Amino acid sequence: MTPLFRKLVAEFLGTLILLATVVGSGVMGIALSKGNDGVALLANAGATAAALYSLISILGPVSGAHFNPAVTLVARLRGEIGGYDAALYIATQLVAAILGVLLAHAMFDLPLVQPGTHVRAGAAQALSEGVATFGLLLTILLGKRFRADSMAALVASYIFAAYWFTASTSFANPAVTLARSLTQTFAGIRPEDVAVFVAAQLVGAAAACVAALPLLGALETSRRPESVH
Amino acid sequence: MTPLFRKLVAEFLGTLILLATVVGSGVMGIALSKGNDGVALLANAGATAAALYSLISILGPVSGAHFNPAVTLVARLRGEIGGYDAALYIATQLVAAILGVLLAHAMFDLPLVQPGTHVRAGAAQALSEGVATFGLLLTILLGKRFRADSMAALVASYIFAAYWFTASTSFANPAVTLARSLTQTFAGIRPEDVAVFVAAQLVGAAAACVAALPLLGALETSRRPESVH
Amino acid sequence: MTPLFRKLVAEFLGTLILLATVVGSGVMGIALSKGNDGVALLANAGATAAALYSLISILGPVSGAHFNPAVTLVARLRGEIGGYDAALYIATQLVAAILGVLLAHAMFDLPLVQPGTHVRAGAAQALSEGVATFGLLLTILLGKRFRADSMAALVASYIFAAYWFTASTSFANPAVTLARSLTQTFAGIRPEDVAVFVAAQLVGAAAACVAALPLLGALETSRRPESVH
Amino acid sequence: MTPLFRKLVAEFLGTLILLATVVGSGVMGIALSKGNDGVALLANAGATAAALYSLISILGPVSGAHFNPAVTLVARLRGEIGGYDAALYIATQLVAAILGVLLAHAMFDLPLVQPGTHVRAGAAQALSEGVATFGLLLTILLGKRFRADSMAALVASYIFAAYWFTASTSFANPAVTLARSLTQTFAGIRPEDVAVFVAAQLVGAAAACVAALPLLGALETSRRPESVH
Repeated sequence: MTPLFRKLVAEFLGTLILLATVVGSGVMGIALSKGNDGVALLANAGATAAALYSLISILGPVSGAHFNPAVTLVARLRGEIGGYDAALYIATQLVAAILGVLLAHAMFDLPLVQPGTHVRAGAAQALSEGVATFGLLLTILLGKRFRADSMAALVASYIFAAYWFTASTSFANPAVTLARSLTQTFAGIRPEDVAVFVAAQLVGAAAACVAALPLLGALETSRRPESVH
Repeated sequence: MTPLFRKLVAEFLGTLILLATVVGSGVMGIALSKGNDGVALLANAGATAAALYSLISILGPVSGAHFNPAVTLVARLRGEIGGYDAALYIATQLVAAILGVLLAHAMFDLPLVQPGTHVRAGAAQALSEGVATFGLLLTILLGKRFRADSMAALVASYIFAAYWFTASTSFANPAVTLARSLTQTFAGIRPEDVAVFVAAQLVGAAAACVAALPLLGALETSRRPESVH
Repeated sequence: MTPLFRKLVAEFLGTLILLATVVGSGVMGIALSKGNDGVALLANAGATAAALYSLISILGPVSGAHFNPAVTLVARLRGEIGGYDAALYIATQLVAAILGVLLAHAMFDLPLVQPGTHVRAGAAQALSEGVATFGLLLTILLGKRFRADSMAALVASYIFAAYWFTASTSFANPAVTLARSLTQTFAGIRPEDVAVFVAAQLVGAAAACVAALPLLGALETSRRPESVH
Repeated sequence: MTPLFRKLVAEFLGTLILLATVVGSGVMGIALSKGNDGVALLANAGATAAALYSLISILGPVSGAHFNPAVTLVARLRGEIGGYDAALYIATQLVAAILGVLLAHAMFDLPLVQPGTHVRAGAAQALSEGVATFGLLLTILLGKRFRADSMAALVASYIFAAYWFTASTSFANPAVTLARSLTQTFAGIRPEDVAVFVAAQLVGAAAACVAALPLLGALETSRRPESVH
């Protein structure tokens, strides 16, 4: 029983419940909304944001509440997590994301595995995922510096907005993308569209790292004088 | 006039208004939404979350704002409340929950008691209630440790999400379940489905107690050195 | 230019914008929702709660952000405000509420004054207003003691819930009730129904004052020892 | 690489993502809502508020998160920003707003530039913009004094309400207004209606500066004694 195990339990439970929420609330939204997919996406986005707020609040103090390989990779890049821990984080996220989809299917009495059929292809979709992940990582990088106490609310609000302002409804997470290829429900994606989504997400995350540099003052030489005086 | 009486008044008023909200907002949602049950559940989930936020904020400082026998039982298990007090908490919650349903019926000019007819049976519904209550108790146990000031917002957000991501719309509360068997409106449940719901809720609550152990660091022997140095 | 004048400006602007929001968002909701009044009430309740959160946050530090004769009367009863100031608060609220309705009509290019035609009569409606105002005052009285920093969010959340869980959509405010008798739009009320609403609101407010006594510990003799030791 | 450059990057990214959200969420809302524009505006207002909350939280510490020439002009009027910086802020906001609209079009695979066709003319629309901007600036001026830590939530909530309570859906921002004349989607405006909107916004902003004087105590001579004693 080590601190790392404790962190992996947090990543596991958080990613599991996050995916159960993303898929489950999509199923419920479509079932109740009589063809008005706008109502279904309001439910889907609202439930996802609400779950993110709660999960990041309670699990952030344990593991950092990544629930997302793109977030873990950026943390690795910035030296905030070791390579071994990062690999286990990502493996845990992938397994938990898949199990979360299965859990949602079980709760709604649906076939446990259903290869996704929702077509999400083309340049506009890829651009959407790049922009969505750029914004998410920018929110995390700047939020951690300026509003660390509000990280859960910041990420939840950002994701609510991104569900609506991108054409892809903002997956912004490679583990989520892979897992959602296992459902034919509202939140699903065709397996063959996963690779482009993940690539776009990683490009967006990298771009956010670059954009954050001036915003965090990392490029300024004028910062040091404060401690000189 | 003792402190215990004061706490029971808080549990009574909180559970009463909570149930009036759950049932009343369901009636209003269905009445206005012209058959689009997605809109009704948005209203129902939003109103329930909003009421929980306010009620837990103002009554939590008095009684802990359980409003839920499963929460009181877990508090008893953890030695946070005595057996006598816990019994009175639960009795108060049951009475207040039933009166809350009657109050909602009175406000909407409906027959005061109406044995529930909404079928909520089967393994998927039971699994849903187990998962819903697991998540609720996990939110409470970890929230109390890591984000005590935000408990009201954490529980409200979690319940909003759980209304949507479970197939049962997340009762997650034995007193709420029993009381909702007394209404034929949107929020109702058949009396014969109550026992399985309550059993699943208690299993979910117990599972959350187990899952919380590593997350709270209760299994780690490596925590003590901090106070040694 | 006195501090009292400053407070009255705050009560004026807050009540004006509150009523413009209540009536204006109702007009917009109905205009856009194609007969699905559930969507209109989601908009109406959401906009009202959002406006209350902002207005109470920015004007509360100036005047206490009553915007409501029932709140001012309770403050007078508890000796928190003088009789002369309370009378001017209430007069200001009434004038501002009426002007707020006219402002909403002007913004939507409607006849400025339109005697209300929305029937809101009967015992169930009166009970609804009593319960709604009871909950509002309970939220304010306990919130001020236990969560003074969160008053704006508490009142906003409570009102969102009360719009949905009462059959009257929770006016809970005599000035709001009177002013809403001047519109034939979604938020309107017949002039002849105003008196019963106001009476029920005052009974509910008085009941909240009584219920708050044990919750605030006012009836306990066991509180004093703390200062004895 | 100067502090001013850093601020302009913040204004650029914030205004860019804000406009992408305003336009993108409108496109998505209309696409999914099957003619129920009430659902589309719920999505549009909710996404805009959520994006504002996140963007102001993370970029406010860098640039003040104006994203709005009216806000920058008021800050200039109050001597909080220099004339040169203010001019660059406004130029940056205009460029970023236009690019944000193009970005939304690109994400939804629409023609990049489409001269707006949505008629928003007449006195009621102008009044709406005046009131909307008055309320926004009042929220900012008082919020900065009384609730500086909650500025992001205050502005987000106010804008959510104003989308619904004004007949114009509250542009309240000259850069946003100009940029939205480049789209024929839900959020668009005819180019010939822009001038009146901007004029009304500036009048509303000026009125807020006047109204804030007594509320901020700027007209009181009774404030000084505190420092005398």
